[in-house]
Amino acid sequence: MNKEFGELKERLGEIHDLHSAVAVLGWDQQVNMPAAGAEGRANQISLLCRLSHEKFVDGRVGEMLENLKAFADGLDPESDEACLVKVTRREYDRNVKVPSSFVAEFARTTSNAHVEWEKAKAASDFLIFRPWLEKIFDLRREYAGFFAPYDHIYDPLLDEFEPGLKTADVKEIFEKVRPAQVELIKEIGRCPETDDSFLHQELDPQKQWELGVEASTAIGFDWSRGRQDRSVHPFTTTFDLNDVRITTRIMPNNFASGFFSTMHESGHAMYEQGISPSLRNTLLCSGASLGIHESQSRLWENLVGRSFDFWVFFYPRLRDKFPGCFDNVSLKDFYRGINRVKRSLIRTESDEATYNLHIMLRLEIEIAVLEGKVAVRDLPEIWNARMEEYLGVAPDNDAHGILQDVHWAGGAVGYFPTYALGNMISAQIWECVSRDIPDLSEKIRQGSFSELHGWLAENIYRHGAKFEPQTLVKKVTGSKIDPAAYIRYLNRKYREIYSL
Amino acid sequence: MNKEFGELKERLGEIHDLHSAVAVLGWDQQVNMPAAGAEGRANQISLLCRLSHEKFVDGRVGEMLENLKAFADGLDPESDEACLVKVTRREYDRNVKVPSSFVAEFARTTSNAHVEWEKAKAASDFLIFRPWLEKIFDLRREYAGFFAPYDHIYDPLLDEFEPGLKTADVKEIFEKVRPAQVELIKEIGRCPETDDSFLHQELDPQKQWELGVEASTAIGFDWSRGRQDRSVHPFTTTFDLNDVRITTRIMPNNFASGFFSTMHESGHAMYEQGISPSLRNTLLCSGASLGIHESQSRLWENLVGRSFDFWVFFYPRLRDKFPGCFDNVSLKDFYRGINRVKRSLIRTESDEATYNLHIMLRLEIEIAVLEGKVAVRDLPEIWNARMEEYLGVAPDNDAHGILQDVHWAGGAVGYFPTYALGNMISAQIWECVSRDIPDLSEKIRQGSFSELHGWLAENIYRHGAKFEPQTLVKKVTGSKIDPAAYIRYLNRKYREIYSL
Repeated sequence: MNKEFGELKERLGEIHDLHSAVAVLGWDQQVNMPAAGAEGRANQISLLCRLSHEKFVDGRVGEMLENLKAFADGLDPESDEACLVKVTRREYDRNVKVPSSFVAEFARTTSNAHVEWEKAKAASDFLIFRPWLEKIFDLRREYAGFFAPYDHIYDPLLDEFEPGLKTADVKEIFEKVRPAQVELIKEIGRCPETDDSFLHQELDPQKQWELGVEASTAIGFDWSRGRQDRSVHPFTTTFDLNDVRITTRIMPNNFASGFFSTMHESGHAMYEQGISPSLRNTLLCSGASLGIHESQSRLWENLVGRSFDFWVFFYPRLRDKFPGCFDNVSLKDFYRGINRVKRSLIRTESDEATYNLHIMLRLEIEIAVLEGKVAVRDLPEIWNARMEEYLGVAPDNDAHGILQDVHWAGGAVGYFPTYALGNMISAQIWECVSRDIPDLSEKIRQGSFSELHGWLAENIYRHGAKFEPQTLVKKVTGSKIDPAAYIRYLNRKYREIYSL
Repeated sequence: MNKEFGELKERLGEIHDLHSAVAVLGWDQQVNMPAAGAEGRANQISLLCRLSHEKFVDGRVGEMLENLKAFADGLDPESDEACLVKVTRREYDRNVKVPSSFVAEFARTTSNAHVEWEKAKAASDFLIFRPWLEKIFDLRREYAGFFAPYDHIYDPLLDEFEPGLKTADVKEIFEKVRPAQVELIKEIGRCPETDDSFLHQELDPQKQWELGVEASTAIGFDWSRGRQDRSVHPFTTTFDLNDVRITTRIMPNNFASGFFSTMHESGHAMYEQGISPSLRNTLLCSGASLGIHESQSRLWENLVGRSFDFWVFFYPRLRDKFPGCFDNVSLKDFYRGINRVKRSLIRTESDEATYNLHIMLRLEIEIAVLEGKVAVRDLPEIWNARMEEYLGVAPDNDAHGILQDVHWAGGAVGYFPTYALGNMISAQIWECVSRDIPDLSEKIRQGSFSELHGWLAENIYRHGAKFEPQTLVKKVTGSKIDPAAYIRYLNRKYREIYSL
């Protein structure tokens, strides 16, 4: 092996270990930590983030990358080695623009802000969180400034989560998908309401947990290399290829919430567990982007988990788990229930037909604040007004409105569009899988997911972050990110359910 | 504030944050981590240990300490500042002798060894653990070598846990205490066996857990600044003054095991929670030594928890928790049961009268291996033979013998004597507390622990690691570590129980 390449890998390994340590500290913060530990934890995370950034932007890394150019050019451009040099170059160029002191301050602020957001949400009081959100938007604006000039202030933020994608691309995609979704929702709005009251009966949380585990096991989550815990906001985090953690939240009277969140996070986790061991402990040992990641979680949550086929397999298990509770609910009614379209307040609980509108609202707000057209203090009001406008419902308190998501507290301004992109990519991929596995529908009805899982592992998981999202989507589906498949999917599914 | 002192504090703060991060990673390893994550975790821990060591032994720290000499000499020698300079000097001089590469290797080895020890113990197969134990003894011998010349090869190892104490001191103390304990056990051996079968009835683990929490709360563990989890071997760890974690293990048919381990770890944790906030994030923000720490855990576990007075208060609660289970057991019989003296195999489950003999066995083995008089491969046999000789019982398998303790896997060779020292110190302290709080016995019977807790906080907890153990013991009790109080305590307690 090239000696300098070896040195680079060793350096990246240390940086990866520091990131993993930060991930453990962050996981513990959300899963276990007593609130009083927040200040100490913020300092610990901040320090590790700074150290890792310092190790990365060190001049020696730039020097190695320069020297490795010829080496990489001589390799198959899709080889692990060539991709590692390429992606390291991209991330190095991005990271050297950001001072380590900024990285430390950002990490400390967002670690503390998380705890304040939890308090604010519990009290449903935006005022508690407002100074933190102002600070976070300021920091994100400062971050964008490191990358000036840019086409749009949102570009550098988006690029962090979706390498290579521009704000203009997102807007163009969203403009295509929005009218189709609005039209669909309008038509559904004229239909009689679906009954989903059986999803809100009180069910034993422990049994709900067990059923989630059963589903997660069936679709392929590897419990010997991961675990599940409870947290306020479900998430997936990776400490190592062999230690991928998911969390969920269980509500006694909302079965769908915990169950589909377990399916969703299992999708993220199986992606991480499926990355090629040859990429372990490098920059490539993660998903290609947040959008690609979300395509994998949404694929298992929705295209599998909310399909009729899946419940042919799983409904008898649900009925066994809760004897008597679903006696009067036919499989078809259950399927209609879990796919009920409803103009609702909470993004994570929303159905596939309305979900993207929640995202668009957030994107508009982020851009407006970053452009200085809107002040953070006015956000609750603006949020409520736009919810009314887009979805015809307005929250009666901040917890159900502006405070509902964890992301801004974590500094993830620029992140939300990846959720909608994930939806679209998941449908593009699904069309390809369905071509390659003609009896997929039957397989799912039998509870056999290994072929699907294998297809995803082969075409997506194993590549880790070797390819940029657009490149990977093109490689897998033959075209770039395109909302057409998702629009087709929504129309086919919901027009059938609502007999439109 | 002296500018250079400020810089030193900042540096020590970063080192402390790195240690805290290692503590979180270690805690998660023992409490949550899937076994497959071991290798990745070992690398993460190893890296953080090396970084923290590098930060500490940096020439700049030596320079600052040199420059701060005059500053510190001008201060009250018991002030936080003077103590910080003094202790940092001591630790710097110790650490600078050890290469950072050794620190990294030692951390990686012990992190991996922990998982192998768990496997070996579960399989009761010493062969699985043997290569790791050999490696660990080699590394400890190498570590001692960094401090040559020494009076005894064990001195540098002991000094790590019990600053200022020599192997010769420990041997002298042990020589005093051994004959008194051996004589006591012999006399008790002639008495009729105590019945403690009620301690081995099957009791609901969840209720056992709750009762432990109730006791821990009563004695003063602050749950807003800590939590309790389950692990194979109970332990206490500190991530921050405001985040101190304890673990316990619950066995359905061994109530005493879980209950007294919760009392024990609560004692450790209350010590940490009681350190003066002025010492936060420095080298002084920990216990004075492992022996002092153990004196605090054993004080709450034994001098309080296994006292008649405590059960006057707590026995009704136990009976309420397990209705019917203790109807035929009088308070006095219960008290005799939890203090039953038995020649037994497992140190952590052993009574106060025999406990120290388990420690002496381990010390002898450690010294013999380090001196090269005994090979690691022969340890199971030697262990079993000495158990037979000292306690008249021999384990029927490795899990109950040589593999029972977690400590060697963690690299803590040189640590065990601190447990026996802790016993002795706890009795010395107890004599002083009893003088200062004349109605202590009555207070405990009423379940009122705040005065006792306050006394310990004032005289011990708040000082953190400001003073060396001998200095602190002298400050609190008027004399150095002395086994006389413990011998008095054992004789008084057990001669009364066994009517000798």
